[in-house]
Amino acid sequence: MRILEQAKDEALSSAKIEALTGWSSHTIRKDISWLEDSDGAAAGSSAGYDPSALLPVIKKALGLDKRRKFCIVGLGRLGSAYLNLGTVDFEEFELCAGFDSNVNRTEILPSPVPLFPAFKMNDVISRFSIEIALLCVPPEAAQTAAEKLAAAGIKGIVNYAPVALKLPPELPVQNVFVVDELRALAVKMNK
Amino acid sequence: MRILEQAKDEALSSAKIEALTGWSSHTIRKDISWLEDSDGAAAGSSAGYDPSALLPVIKKALGLDKRRKFCIVGLGRLGSAYLNLGTVDFEEFELCAGFDSNVNRTEILPSPVPLFPAFKMNDVISRFSIEIALLCVPPEAAQTAAEKLAAAGIKGIVNYAPVALKLPPELPVQNVFVVDELRALAVKMNK
Repeated sequence: MRILEQAKDEALSSAKIEALTGWSSHTIRKDISWLEDSDGAAAGSSAGYDPSALLPVIKKALGLDKRRKFCIVGLGRLGSAYLNLGTVDFEEFELCAGFDSNVNRTEILPSPVPLFPAFKMNDVISRFSIEIALLCVPPEAAQTAAEKLAAAGIKGIVNYAPVALKLPPELPVQNVFVVDELRALAVKMNK
Repeated sequence: MRILEQAKDEALSSAKIEALTGWSSHTIRKDISWLEDSDGAAAGSSAGYDPSALLPVIKKALGLDKRRKFCIVGLGRLGSAYLNLGTVDFEEFELCAGFDSNVNRTEILPSPVPLFPAFKMNDVISRFSIEIALLCVPPEAAQTAAEKLAAAGIKGIVNYAPVALKLPPELPVQNVFVVDELRALAVKMNK
């Protein structure tokens, strides 16, 4: 998707997409034609695919065509580093709050979005219709915080705490663990 | 791999692995038998696979059986948050240095590993045989820093700066972008 965004004005052939992604051009043509059939849009031509036409079709197929609100839970070094996401103009996501159990921190941290003490999580999440939380608390606090988020009605968690969360299956979690990224890189380094 | 580590003492059948990962038990049996053939090890039995025997076989096949040294480049909020990785006992990775262009920062930040001013990167990376860098500098500094790392002989980069780096193809990059993680989560939330 990033590739399509960067190529916005240039027609992309399936061969070019293959060179950029490593996916086979055959699979790409098959997948895109399936999207076109299901959507009725025709993004391809003999010159290649038009990225600006293809992007909304793919976003819709993946369910990324609606804007979702997210919050940051835990404003230590990592969480407070991500507060600046409030100044980034994502089309699909909007940072709209930060939480920390340390009230002092929520009062003094500079932030482009409002910060709240953790005990207001329930109230703020439902008031703002926040769907996603970036979980940036210390590992020993992660499971408890995740359960509070679940109870507050959060719909998905990006988990930066290096802990496997135990949550109901209908609450999806995206884990971002440094060691997993290091391993993925090391595998590429061996090729 | 995390699943195998957590299951260390319990035999795992391919059906159990299927339940934990979502991969089909047939594919799992085929992949593992291929690893066993190529390695000469026999980790499976009628009771299931022995995780403690399987783990080294898989690590070796992925090239994760040797310990690699890594450093953190950019010690702002994000980079300094990851300095505590120096206290984590990873079997395969060892944090051994941090760099920042701000000398003041490298002198006052508390850190379990030695910190150096950025101009010492070349020297320190070759002296310690550091192979991997976590790139945590601001987006506008990322490309220049990555080129300096390439010149210093770094072998791979985990890139936290939301910028597509232009580097020679033999230097692999693992991008960790918040928006990609949010998108991956949003796709799961739609299922």
